[in-house]
Amino acid sequence: MTAYDDLIAFDRETQALAQIAGRLGWDQETMMPRGSADQRGEEFAAIEGVLHARRTDPRVGEWLATAEAKDEVATAMLRQIRRSYDRAMKVPAKLAAEIAKVTSKSQGIWAEARSNNDFAAFTPTFKEVLRLKREEGAALANGGDIYDAMLDDYEPGAKAADLVAMFDAMRPRLVALREAVLAKPQPAGVTGTFDEVAQLKLSTLLAETFGYDMSRGRIDKAVHPFSSGSGNDVRITTRTAADDPFNCFYSTIHEVGHACYEQNIDQAYLLSPLGGGVSMGVHESQSRIYENQLGRSRAFTGWLFGKMRDAFGDFGIADEVAFYAAVNRVNRGYIRTEADELQYNLHVLLRFDLERALISGDLEIDDLEAAWNDRFEADFGYAVDKASNGVLQDVHWPVGLFGYFPTYSLGNVYAGNLHAALRKAVPNLDDDLSRGDLAAATGWLRDNLQQHGGLYEPRDTIRRAIRAEPTEAPLLDYLEAKFSDLYQL
Amino acid sequence: MTAYDDLIAFDRETQALAQIAGRLGWDQETMMPRGSADQRGEEFAAIEGVLHARRTDPRVGEWLATAEAKDEVATAMLRQIRRSYDRAMKVPAKLAAEIAKVTSKSQGIWAEARSNNDFAAFTPTFKEVLRLKREEGAALANGGDIYDAMLDDYEPGAKAADLVAMFDAMRPRLVALREAVLAKPQPAGVTGTFDEVAQLKLSTLLAETFGYDMSRGRIDKAVHPFSSGSGNDVRITTRTAADDPFNCFYSTIHEVGHACYEQNIDQAYLLSPLGGGVSMGVHESQSRIYENQLGRSRAFTGWLFGKMRDAFGDFGIADEVAFYAAVNRVNRGYIRTEADELQYNLHVLLRFDLERALISGDLEIDDLEAAWNDRFEADFGYAVDKASNGVLQDVHWPVGLFGYFPTYSLGNVYAGNLHAALRKAVPNLDDDLSRGDLAAATGWLRDNLQQHGGLYEPRDTIRRAIRAEPTEAPLLDYLEAKFSDLYQL
Repeated sequence: MTAYDDLIAFDRETQALAQIAGRLGWDQETMMPRGSADQRGEEFAAIEGVLHARRTDPRVGEWLATAEAKDEVATAMLRQIRRSYDRAMKVPAKLAAEIAKVTSKSQGIWAEARSNNDFAAFTPTFKEVLRLKREEGAALANGGDIYDAMLDDYEPGAKAADLVAMFDAMRPRLVALREAVLAKPQPAGVTGTFDEVAQLKLSTLLAETFGYDMSRGRIDKAVHPFSSGSGNDVRITTRTAADDPFNCFYSTIHEVGHACYEQNIDQAYLLSPLGGGVSMGVHESQSRIYENQLGRSRAFTGWLFGKMRDAFGDFGIADEVAFYAAVNRVNRGYIRTEADELQYNLHVLLRFDLERALISGDLEIDDLEAAWNDRFEADFGYAVDKASNGVLQDVHWPVGLFGYFPTYSLGNVYAGNLHAALRKAVPNLDDDLSRGDLAAATGWLRDNLQQHGGLYEPRDTIRRAIRAEPTEAPLLDYLEAKFSDLYQL
Repeated sequence: MTAYDDLIAFDRETQALAQIAGRLGWDQETMMPRGSADQRGEEFAAIEGVLHARRTDPRVGEWLATAEAKDEVATAMLRQIRRSYDRAMKVPAKLAAEIAKVTSKSQGIWAEARSNNDFAAFTPTFKEVLRLKREEGAALANGGDIYDAMLDDYEPGAKAADLVAMFDAMRPRLVALREAVLAKPQPAGVTGTFDEVAQLKLSTLLAETFGYDMSRGRIDKAVHPFSSGSGNDVRITTRTAADDPFNCFYSTIHEVGHACYEQNIDQAYLLSPLGGGVSMGVHESQSRIYENQLGRSRAFTGWLFGKMRDAFGDFGIADEVAFYAAVNRVNRGYIRTEADELQYNLHVLLRFDLERALISGDLEIDDLEAAWNDRFEADFGYAVDKASNGVLQDVHWPVGLFGYFPTYSLGNVYAGNLHAALRKAVPNLDDDLSRGDLAAATGWLRDNLQQHGGLYEPRDTIRRAIRAEPTEAPLLDYLEAKFSDLYQL
């Protein structure tokens, strides 16, 4: 056994334990009896303790010091393990424990403040979270930029300056497009109530249509849709609303995008550091292209219209054209998670700018609500009515996730690039989509991106798939063309 | 922090990790996609590795050497931790790994041999399993009796010699009772098909009626009913058969007996070495008294008859008396898990005698099938027709579980003792049962036995509940009275 072999064998067990911890999270959201919460908290702490001990095990450092990579795959394995090890070693155990404790407590305080629309009730806790996360960021940055260090946790290699340039180019075009669309009359939405069993049945058909392998996954209901797990046990959740079947269907397709990425990674990387999606941004590119560029396309919605008519009869939409408009309706609204394809990125850009200002110290938490509301009105054209529709709407900051939001929009940008490349590679894509045939599209994504898992760095993963440098242009061009057509701009 | 505090804190994390491993097992039988089996195997191995490392951690030995117990509870905590540590330290890691490997492989070979009714196809593997388990038993026995050492894994403190005396006293009376009953005409069984949804609904009602706390548990379907977990997350499974609703109902009540034992342990023992059932035999006493002495009683079946009439209408049974006879019908059969209350222990006694002979070397595996068939015919009065109905029917030996079978009958004996004491403590029990009111019965079991968890040694746990020495007499008296009445002997 060489140092490399020892390291990989040790890491494989760590990966297996991380899968178990992930499945415990899945169980908590889907199966766990409500009276088990406290006990579950201790169980989580115990396995997180084991994982932390393994990630900072001195032997990992020793193996890394002498391990030699024989090929590209081995080089990538070592890179990933080194990144994880360096990251874990930089944060003092006491600080990590304090962050875990405070963020666990803060979630409840945030939830109560949100239900009372009282930002001030959350600010003392929020200041503590921010202080600790800045301290952690400083430890990770090691003299470099703190926000970049935070970003690196979710999108290795990304730099805030590059994202600023990209997002600054997007913002005016998105604001203008949004304004033009909302000046036009709204298309009709669906009407009536939609049987839950029928929704879930069609949801499963959609999952399989998009290539989700049910023999290595399962679909359950949960309050918040998510995808969980890697390799051969990748589970998704969805939700239903009686008056809005699109909530279920597009939640499912979105999560199937995440799940197929995990399922389609080369089996040779199973339980290795290459066996999961390479970054949040690349992950989101998969969920978004499945959901939006493919799932909300004119061609595919034509097929879906037929399936919905079969399942639900008349639901107030006359034909495929009206259905396409209903699926892509742009509504005024405050909530990021309910936003349409056009407005979604404006929500993210707002958070990105505010969180960078919080981390740099340019913005104080006491001024955050006003800053949020000013920015919202500037970009969306109307005022936030209450904190639960504004600064208190997302769980991310309360639990210490800074540097996470921009990966959503980066994922959308990457999806725009991938979509442009896919259209060139599969010229008759709309013919396929109009028959509900996703094989060529998802096959192209599998072969050109998904199979590689963590083999290449995130941006390089996209670059190799599209054979060009990723930019924001294809996403913006796509959105402008799509919504100009839909709203006759 | 004293050595005792350090030890308990460390053990608490180990207990939490053991709960996670248990829940992974639950997931495998209920939720896991079939394509995940290989990955799950690695996940199991990883967490078992963590648990083994913690159980043999040198610090545990050091803490045990100096830890001082201040009271009865602390004394019991140390006793349980010391037992687990000594047990883990006695078995060489190489042998433990070999056993894990061989028994994992042997299960598949056994399953195939069973489906081909070919015992000879399994004997080479079985010999290997037996050889390794005897080696392990010798390591555990440390010069003492190997079978007693094996028994100690499941029933701490029990001795084969005591069980032999007890079982030898039971066998002739059971054989005679069985013979007398089977000479009589059989009562009618239920007819028709029973809707699965309605079965599961009544199954849940039964679980709650027997005191199962659904806010700290859940019921799912599985091929084999089981109970899993301790403390505030104790889950059970059941199964359904369209033509046999009793399969579902009594599986549920049986597992609820196990689960309530776990749920009713003093919350002060949560995630401690006292926070689980104290032995297999005591556990089985709870499942059996719930299922048989309470669930199959004349009084309770009267209530159940009404519930079944409400749920299913007419199912071929005219009244409560006929229903009581149908529930307790004694059938000829080969399979232990399908056996009724009367014959069940004869199945166990057969296995107990044969496995002791295998371990002592008095019986060779090559002669096992013939020995099984001879003994079966002697006790049951007819010949085994095929190996899957005989020596190949149970998974226990193929996976190396020797010393486990007798705990089933010990549990039945204990249930007999508890039932006699319960009848004295709750004189109007039948009134309660006839109204479907289990509160007094299960409350008595909770207060006198279940709450103690691992505080007392197994036999002492029973002794304290019944305030006498447990013997086989009450079970035999109960069975003879019940079946004499039912079959008019």
